[in-house]
Amino acid sequence: MSDTASPVGVAVLGLGNVGSEVVRIIESSADDLAARIGAPLVLRGVGVRRVSADRGVPVELLTDDIDSLVSRSDVDIVVELMGPVEPARKAILSAIAHGKSVVTANKALLSRSTGELAEAAETARVDMYFEAAVAGAIPVIRPLTQSLAGDTVERVAGIVNGTTNYILSEMDSTGADYRSALADASALGYAEADPTADVEGYDAAAKAAILASIAFHTRVTADDVYREGITNISPADFTAARALGCTIKLLAICERITTGGQQRVSARVYPALVPQAHPLATVNGAFNAVVVEAQAAGRLMFYGQGAGGAPTASAVTGDLVMAARNRVQGGRGPRESKYAQLAIAPIGDIQTRYYVSMDVADKPGVLSSVAAEFAAHEVSIAEVRQEGVADHEGQPVGARIVVVTHRAPESALSKTVAALSDLDAVQRVASVLRLEGTDQ
Amino acid sequence: MSDTASPVGVAVLGLGNVGSEVVRIIESSADDLAARIGAPLVLRGVGVRRVSADRGVPVELLTDDIDSLVSRSDVDIVVELMGPVEPARKAILSAIAHGKSVVTANKALLSRSTGELAEAAETARVDMYFEAAVAGAIPVIRPLTQSLAGDTVERVAGIVNGTTNYILSEMDSTGADYRSALADASALGYAEADPTADVEGYDAAAKAAILASIAFHTRVTADDVYREGITNISPADFTAARALGCTIKLLAICERITTGGQQRVSARVYPALVPQAHPLATVNGAFNAVVVEAQAAGRLMFYGQGAGGAPTASAVTGDLVMAARNRVQGGRGPRESKYAQLAIAPIGDIQTRYYVSMDVADKPGVLSSVAAEFAAHEVSIAEVRQEGVADHEGQPVGARIVVVTHRAPESALSKTVAALSDLDAVQRVASVLRLEGTDQ
Repeated sequence: MSDTASPVGVAVLGLGNVGSEVVRIIESSADDLAARIGAPLVLRGVGVRRVSADRGVPVELLTDDIDSLVSRSDVDIVVELMGPVEPARKAILSAIAHGKSVVTANKALLSRSTGELAEAAETARVDMYFEAAVAGAIPVIRPLTQSLAGDTVERVAGIVNGTTNYILSEMDSTGADYRSALADASALGYAEADPTADVEGYDAAAKAAILASIAFHTRVTADDVYREGITNISPADFTAARALGCTIKLLAICERITTGGQQRVSARVYPALVPQAHPLATVNGAFNAVVVEAQAAGRLMFYGQGAGGAPTASAVTGDLVMAARNRVQGGRGPRESKYAQLAIAPIGDIQTRYYVSMDVADKPGVLSSVAAEFAAHEVSIAEVRQEGVADHEGQPVGARIVVVTHRAPESALSKTVAALSDLDAVQRVASVLRLEGTDQ
Repeated sequence: MSDTASPVGVAVLGLGNVGSEVVRIIESSADDLAARIGAPLVLRGVGVRRVSADRGVPVELLTDDIDSLVSRSDVDIVVELMGPVEPARKAILSAIAHGKSVVTANKALLSRSTGELAEAAETARVDMYFEAAVAGAIPVIRPLTQSLAGDTVERVAGIVNGTTNYILSEMDSTGADYRSALADASALGYAEADPTADVEGYDAAAKAAILASIAFHTRVTADDVYREGITNISPADFTAARALGCTIKLLAICERITTGGQQRVSARVYPALVPQAHPLATVNGAFNAVVVEAQAAGRLMFYGQGAGGAPTASAVTGDLVMAARNRVQGGRGPRESKYAQLAIAPIGDIQTRYYVSMDVADKPGVLSSVAAEFAAHEVSIAEVRQEGVADHEGQPVGARIVVVTHRAPESALSKTVAALSDLDAVQRVASVLRLEGTDQ
């Protein structure tokens, strides 16, 4: 390392919230970054779709010719922040082919093409860092790949999508229904015009795939992740959750499961009841948190801002400094680790606890026939409540039964729910949610 | 990287709780570790004070000749877990001089000799990792040195000593006094026979020095850290804290402070009132947590088990895998970064809020003369309570005044307290504690 080392050249692709903030930090913290890297970091160009003078970056740095930018000989590191899957994939592969190290926050791409990108980086012997792809500013990738490199991870469970967490926190604290909480999130800029990727759990599923790949040394893609969104969560679910001492969170869960001596990986995203005393229950609004359970370390939690320009830029520039240090000092960062190659467990094999709520006829014997269906499928009941339901004039119109089960296989629960729906006394199964974060 | 790479030889110094667990993981996870490193990790020997057959490790691996062990040609990495400062320092310097990379959890040594060890490692071009020196299994060093390498850290505040946190949690939840809470901690193995290092804050101060060095790219030693322990905390302090919506925690605080354009570093350890709503307030028992505030990332929190054989061994083996990977793949881990060389701010220059409790004569005009002393020293009062104090037969014997201030310089507060003690109406200043985690 020398103070007179040649500069490290950087190309940034994309000039949205995150890209603008990364460019700002490269300029405003130039002296600090140079001292930490051992050489100056020089911004060579910024790839944008439309070059114009009003982008807050000197216009001579802007280009819409991404191919030329990523192949420039004075560029050492390419920071990809343009998304979506294409043209980002093509740009990254081209950068790697030209010997550039890559920093990206593109979870959709990584969760689809992680093997392809990792192999290209390995062949070219360049770095690929992606701390910002999961949970924004919160260090999660680096702790899993490095700090826990000597441990055995059993489970990663997190709130990794700020939009849905804002919506669910809002529903819990104000009693709002899904539609109006979504409208609030949109008004505050927490939800995009088309919120599908967030509210249907696709964004969280991409992150779950990345986390599971790293935690279990196994390639897991977004398609391997079981996924349910939050659009069917009702105020009644929150009322029932509160009565059970819980709230409702959209969780991404990556788990090592062992059946008959065989280890497999489960990765899944769904809204779940979480006990108020669980550390994830108090993660509200646009914050993210990830809980990691490892054999020796026990339970760790990482908490912070999971999205937004500045927090995401913090993670990106951290990666950028590490990639630049490797250029100056020699050496490479951690590479893909996929030696374990565990099989993916289907959702039917997962055991968890369930909350089932159903509208029933208010007559004797209903509870008994409901309980009989759970017993017939060997799903053990932990708690059951029955209460009268009145219409808006206060006249009784039926009853609601809420059942909380002990741990049971998902397949048995599915069959139970199907059988319950067929019962004459059950008008409808209103809601089925998992209960996570308890042991029974 | 090749599957047939030469083995990486490891020497472990010390076979206490942590050393035994590290040896166990090296043996039981051999296949996983080899896959992650790209070469087998082979335990060459374990340095102990007394070689005997009952140590749970094959006796032929044991040696009391540390000098010979750390200089063996088939040893690549030395894991130092023997403490205290000596003979650990000598063993580490000898290992480095022989070209070995070093992993250590020795916070006392690091906080005294960090410059010396770092320079030796730099000269020999070897790695020195010490994630386990702060907060056990919780990744803190790596996030600060790597994940936040592109950001500007403003503040690190943490609960980094499990013994004192157990004692304070116990005092808060049971109303116990300090002596009996300490006795409970000893009985449970949370406190050592001589608890001085923990209860007087020396252990936390060593960790504060390490955190401040890394966060602010400045050499900070244990002697630079202002330190107060918890031995004077009384049940009355907890009662008063609760009335203010707070609990009491021993905090390690590392802060960048800017006065008149000059940046300085403050590192300090003391018991403080923390609002119940602050994330650190709910960290109870033997758990640790560290909150990092950075310009772009915002507030991050890291939580987990801060001590114990297995959690500490998790951090040690993570470092061991990283050091081994560097041996196999080339490259080195992060080195000491001290370019900023900020000055240390004396405690008198620190601004925070204070809680002052004093026993006073129960007569008119006392509150007014107390308030006048705060005003005379320009310490602004946020809240004041006065209540009668009765003897054990219920007879009034005086009064107690509790004052909570707005932010004020420590030097002004000290002068205020001295002046209060001189007032005829003030029998004694019973307690002065800082109030952290609020903004006013």
